[in-house]
Amino acid sequence: MDNPNKPVSSPGFEGAEKLLEIWFQPAATQVAGERKGLFQVARQTWVEMLKLVRCEVIGYISSGELDAYLLSESSMFVGEHSLVLKTCGTTTPLLALEKLLEIAKNIGLTEVDQFFYSRKSFMFPEFQKFPHTGWDDEVKFIEKEGHNFVNGSAYLIGKTNGSHWYCYIWDLGRTLKKETRQPEKRPWSSRDYTLEVLMCGLDPENSCIFSREHPKDANGRLKVTNALQALYDHVQIDDFMFDPCGYSCNGISGHHYFDVHVTPESHCSFASFETNLPPTEKMPYTKLVSDVIAIFKPSSFTVTLFAEKDEFDDEVTEHPMPPSFLGGKDGLRRQDRINYEFDHYDLAFTHYTTK
Amino acid sequence: MDNPNKPVSSPGFEGAEKLLEIWFQPAATQVAGERKGLFQVARQTWVEMLKLVRCEVIGYISSGELDAYLLSESSMFVGEHSLVLKTCGTTTPLLALEKLLEIAKNIGLTEVDQFFYSRKSFMFPEFQKFPHTGWDDEVKFIEKEGHNFVNGSAYLIGKTNGSHWYCYIWDLGRTLKKETRQPEKRPWSSRDYTLEVLMCGLDPENSCIFSREHPKDANGRLKVTNALQALYDHVQIDDFMFDPCGYSCNGISGHHYFDVHVTPESHCSFASFETNLPPTEKMPYTKLVSDVIAIFKPSSFTVTLFAEKDEFDDEVTEHPMPPSFLGGKDGLRRQDRINYEFDHYDLAFTHYTTK
Repeated sequence: MDNPNKPVSSPGFEGAEKLLEIWFQPAATQVAGERKGLFQVARQTWVEMLKLVRCEVIGYISSGELDAYLLSESSMFVGEHSLVLKTCGTTTPLLALEKLLEIAKNIGLTEVDQFFYSRKSFMFPEFQKFPHTGWDDEVKFIEKEGHNFVNGSAYLIGKTNGSHWYCYIWDLGRTLKKETRQPEKRPWSSRDYTLEVLMCGLDPENSCIFSREHPKDANGRLKVTNALQALYDHVQIDDFMFDPCGYSCNGISGHHYFDVHVTPESHCSFASFETNLPPTEKMPYTKLVSDVIAIFKPSSFTVTLFAEKDEFDDEVTEHPMPPSFLGGKDGLRRQDRINYEFDHYDLAFTHYTTK
Repeated sequence: MDNPNKPVSSPGFEGAEKLLEIWFQPAATQVAGERKGLFQVARQTWVEMLKLVRCEVIGYISSGELDAYLLSESSMFVGEHSLVLKTCGTTTPLLALEKLLEIAKNIGLTEVDQFFYSRKSFMFPEFQKFPHTGWDDEVKFIEKEGHNFVNGSAYLIGKTNGSHWYCYIWDLGRTLKKETRQPEKRPWSSRDYTLEVLMCGLDPENSCIFSREHPKDANGRLKVTNALQALYDHVQIDDFMFDPCGYSCNGISGHHYFDVHVTPESHCSFASFETNLPPTEKMPYTKLVSDVIAIFKPSSFTVTLFAEKDEFDDEVTEHPMPPSFLGGKDGLRRQDRINYEFDHYDLAFTHYTTK
C-alpha cells in the first residue's frame, strides 16, 4: 500500500550493501590454454549484467587469481568459480541472478555449489526497488522458478526491534557433492572466510575526509588508504573518491580481497569493510576489526563472520576468533553475540553500540 | 487487510503455546508469618486475571515452593517471586500483563527483575486474537506505556522461510541490580534453566491414545504418565484428558516443574514438554530430550534451552549439554543449531526434521 505521506526522494543515501556470493562447481571439461572458469567471461558481458543491477564499472585490477571491479555502487570480485557482488544504494543485484546463471552456463558452469545473499536492515527501506522491497520479497524472488534454488534457508539475525542482518543460504549443491567424496582435512588458513564489519554513526572528524570539498581530503584519504594497505602485505589497491563525497576501495592479493565503502554524510553515515582473507598470526581478526574500527570510530557496528567448517569433523570446532571479541573496549558495549552452525560454515554475528 | 477467502473457523487447533515468564525482585519489607511473595495472591485473583487470557483453572497442586495450576489451555506455575504462564489455542496471555504487574505491585513486588515471552511460529496465525496477530504486534504491545519494558530485545530464531521461534527478553531490572552487587559463583545445578521440546507431526499410533474415544485410552495414558513420572524422582503429577481429545500434565518437585501438552488431531498434531529442572548426572538433557522424543515420535521438533550464565565469568562458559545433541539419531536430521549469548543467559536453539 502506498503511503500518501511518503517523501518523494530518499532522506539519505542507503550505504548498507546487498551482498551476493555464488560458487560454481568446476566444468567437467576445460578448453586447454584459455583463461579458466569465469575468467573467460568478456568484460562487456559483466557490464551488461551490471545494467540490471543499476551500476557501472569504474575501475579494474587483477591479480591473475582474482579480478576486482570497482563499481559506481561498491564492488564485484570474480574468481575462477566464484563471484562476489556487493552493491549499495537502491541497486537491484538480485535482478541479475538469472543473467549470472546464464553467463555461467554458457561457459559450462552449469551447477551451483553454494549461494549466499545477505544484507543489513536498511536505513530507508521504503526507497528500495523490487525485489529489495522487503526480506520476504527477496527470499521469494531468490526461490522463484528458473533460479533452481529450493530448500534454501533464510534467517533474520539480531534484534527484530533494532539493528539486524538478513542472510540467505543455499548449499544443496555442495551438500550433494559432499556425499559422493571424501571430506578434506585442511588447516584453518586454507578455509573460506567472509568477514564483514558494518559501521554506523561514523566520527564526523574522520568521515568528512571522504568529501571532495573538505580541505583535509587528499591527506586524509591517503592516511586511510595507508591504514588499509597496512592491514595486509603485497596488496594491490584500486580506490575512488566520489563527487561530492563517498569513498570506495578494492584491495587484492592472490585470490584474497578486501573492500571498503564509505558514505560520510552525517545524517546517514555508514562504512563497510569486507574481506575473505583468513586470520593470520600477524593479523588475527580481533586486531583486524579493532584496526578498522579505529579508522572510522563508529557509534555502532556489526561484525559478521562466515568461517568454513572442518568437514572432517561434524562437531563444533574452535575457530581462531577469541570469544570475547572486543567486548567492552573503547566504551563500546556488545549487544548481541549469536552463533549459527550451518552444514558447511559457522557464522558468528556480534553487534556493538556505544554505552 | 481482511482476506475475503479466509475460512470462518480455524482448520485446526493451535497447539503451539505462548510462554510468558516473569521474575520480580523481592519486596523490601515482608509481613512475618504469612506466605511470602506471590503466594499471598488469592486463587480468585489469578482466576480473574486468567479471564483476560481466556482460560480457566481446572487443577491445582502445590509443593509449598511452587503452585502449579492446570489450565483449560495449558499451565501456570507460581513461585515466590516468579510466574510462568503457558497457554495455547487462541488465548491472549499478553492481555493479562498489566493486571499481573498490578497484582504484584499490590503485594509490594514493584520491581521486575526480568521478563521473557516466547512462542513457536503458529500453524494458523490468521486465527489469533490481538495482540497475538503477529510478532511485531506482540512486541509493540509488550513495550506499550504502563508496562515499563523499554530497551527489550526481540528475536526471530530459525528460518524465516520455515519453522521458527520468537523470543522477547527484558532484563534491565536484573542488569541494574547486578551493577550494585557481587556476582555469585554457583554450581550449574543451582542455576535457572528453561528447556522446551516442541514437537510436530506426532506418530498417530502413539498420539491417538490422547483421544477419549480411543480404546487404548486408559492404558496408553497411564503408560505416558508413567514414562513422564520416570523422568524424575519424587514428582507430584496433575494431569487431565480433554473431551473429545487432548492431554495436559503438570509435574512438580520442590521449586521445579515440568509440563506436557498434547494436541493429537493428525492434521495439526503437536506436543510440548517444558521443564526448569536442571540437568543431572542421572538425567542429562540429551537423555531427557531423547526420552521425550521416544514418547511422541514426532516428524520434526525444536529444542530451546535457556541456561543461566555464570555471572562470575563474562566469557562463554561450557554448558552441560553436549554439542552434538541428538544429531542424526533415529532418522532425524538437525536443520539448525543456533546459540545466542545474552547478558544473563545463554540460549541454544536446535531444530530437527526427519530426512
